[in-house]
Amino acid sequence: MSPLTITVFKGSPSGHIIQTTTPLSPLTTSQVLVEIHYAGLCGTDLHYLHNDQVLGHEGVGVVKELGPSVRHLKIGDRVGFGWYHDSCGHCAECLVGDGGHCRNDPHAFGTHDLEQGGFATHVVWKEDFLYPIPAAMSLADAAPMMCAGITVFTPLTRYVKPGQRVGVVGIGALGHLAIQFACRMGAEVVAFSGTEGKRAEAIKLGATEFVVTKATGEAKPDGGLLDVLLVTTSALPDWNMYLRIMAPYGTIVPLMIQFDNLSIPFLPFLLKGIRFQGSSVGTRLEFRNMLEFAVRHGVKPTIERFPLNLEGIEEAKAMMEGGRLRYKAVLEVEHA
Amino acid sequence: MSPLTITVFKGSPSGHIIQTTTPLSPLTTSQVLVEIHYAGLCGTDLHYLHNDQVLGHEGVGVVKELGPSVRHLKIGDRVGFGWYHDSCGHCAECLVGDGGHCRNDPHAFGTHDLEQGGFATHVVWKEDFLYPIPAAMSLADAAPMMCAGITVFTPLTRYVKPGQRVGVVGIGALGHLAIQFACRMGAEVVAFSGTEGKRAEAIKLGATEFVVTKATGEAKPDGGLLDVLLVTTSALPDWNMYLRIMAPYGTIVPLMIQFDNLSIPFLPFLLKGIRFQGSSVGTRLEFRNMLEFAVRHGVKPTIERFPLNLEGIEEAKAMMEGGRLRYKAVLEVEHA
Repeated sequence: MSPLTITVFKGSPSGHIIQTTTPLSPLTTSQVLVEIHYAGLCGTDLHYLHNDQVLGHEGVGVVKELGPSVRHLKIGDRVGFGWYHDSCGHCAECLVGDGGHCRNDPHAFGTHDLEQGGFATHVVWKEDFLYPIPAAMSLADAAPMMCAGITVFTPLTRYVKPGQRVGVVGIGALGHLAIQFACRMGAEVVAFSGTEGKRAEAIKLGATEFVVTKATGEAKPDGGLLDVLLVTTSALPDWNMYLRIMAPYGTIVPLMIQFDNLSIPFLPFLLKGIRFQGSSVGTRLEFRNMLEFAVRHGVKPTIERFPLNLEGIEEAKAMMEGGRLRYKAVLEVEHA
Repeated sequence: MSPLTITVFKGSPSGHIIQTTTPLSPLTTSQVLVEIHYAGLCGTDLHYLHNDQVLGHEGVGVVKELGPSVRHLKIGDRVGFGWYHDSCGHCAECLVGDGGHCRNDPHAFGTHDLEQGGFATHVVWKEDFLYPIPAAMSLADAAPMMCAGITVFTPLTRYVKPGQRVGVVGIGALGHLAIQFACRMGAEVVAFSGTEGKRAEAIKLGATEFVVTKATGEAKPDGGLLDVLLVTTSALPDWNMYLRIMAPYGTIVPLMIQFDNLSIPFLPFLLKGIRFQGSSVGTRLEFRNMLEFAVRHGVKPTIERFPLNLEGIEEAKAMMEGGRLRYKAVLEVEHA
């Protein structure tokens, strides 16, 4: 029996998170009703606290009901969803399963379907934008993969060749997954962090070198120049510092959300032939590949669990803002 | 008989160009003495007017004398040279003929060998950094190819696929060559200019569309989004305007010399997956390919000739600074 309403947690004009309900209509077309079990908290959610919209874009759960046009999913399937909900279906990017880069009408977190989201007991979502979770992955571990995981996996598979040297700046929710993915793809990983605190953990996750940046104002890996740099800090770094240690033709992928401009020192960018590459989430195939790769190679987020209720969200948010999370907050829904 | 001294034109502390001489020592190793016939004037030369160095980095002429280790060039060969003079020879980039991106010791215009350059009667240059000019190309036409030509050819061959839509911003020395190269590589070319003035010429060079940017504050090509954008203006453009008309995963290549930072609006860069690619000149193989392609497909610079003397250089410089050159100044050396 499906519920008549969905409990959801939304932003509000004051910035306080509120609990309310979204009414549930009969499913149409390829809509799927998912009972949410876990939802990751992402730094980006904090940019939307003042919006009248359901928060959360890393949800996972179990299929409960199918719309009339659903083709592949079955009731009981374990699925996840992320930033994008729908797209035009016929532009160049949609034709190759890359609805997140739809030229015409990308339905995204923050702009469309504001009554649905991850911080909720259920969600109504389009089948094409639900990603089946492999049996060997727990639903709690799957939640952070829906945004943090895909965000680092995609540029690593696109821009890194095995044997290259990859820098990961910031050892947090994204960074601790990036280190694991990159070293299991055959890269040599250099972790950059503001303090010594995460050295042992970064090395354990797979980094070969750990470089502390804040104390010295300089970053100088022992093993030489970097071919690819993933920047996962929330603030923009000192590009001069990193341009000095990039190899010619190196690729820099800034993975934060920023409303400031990206201000790049021009001459080193030009003369070294550096590539600054914008990147966000991934295609449907990359989601599938990312989940399978994580299972096969033992990539696993380190999570801290909180209940999905007002107190739980606030506590997770406070820990994130205080930099005390190691490494990812996952909100857990209690279903009767 | 080789001369005992070379006449050269240098920058000076006051910014005035002066005529002087460089003594000529016996050639060693793979040094080659080239009698210069033509030298292109490039906007970048103007950044070096206050330096005590020979100006000019687009020289072409005829081989007059060979050092003891020269392997391939012969006396009488027609050759050209550009921005780079030498490199370490054993780093990853040098191993593939890309001395301009040498990790250890790139010898470049403005930093090394300041007593040699294009604005001169002769030059002593290392064989590996001299590019043979095809028989079907005049030496006068070859001069602009040594910097302007290679600067646009390299990113076009690396980043453009046939059938893609390529924007060329600025229809000057670089732009008028970029239009020709791009359309002959099978791209659809959109030319962007500040005024109507160059419409007919841009279309004749091969552009399909001509978009005037200054009058409207907006640029909107009729034929849709752009896959690659080459920016050849001397100033940085309004990136917001161009980001709006880039296709997802589009590549933007800024080809000017700038001492300001490159300031990129972050969210469109991130969400569209845009690539900002640094690019300068090309490898030894790309020089050869560029010259052969130009001959085979009839790519030809439009040049204005000036004598290579103090008056000629000043006149060419004044026309460049006034925006009156169409499209490239070539200085001509008179040999007795």
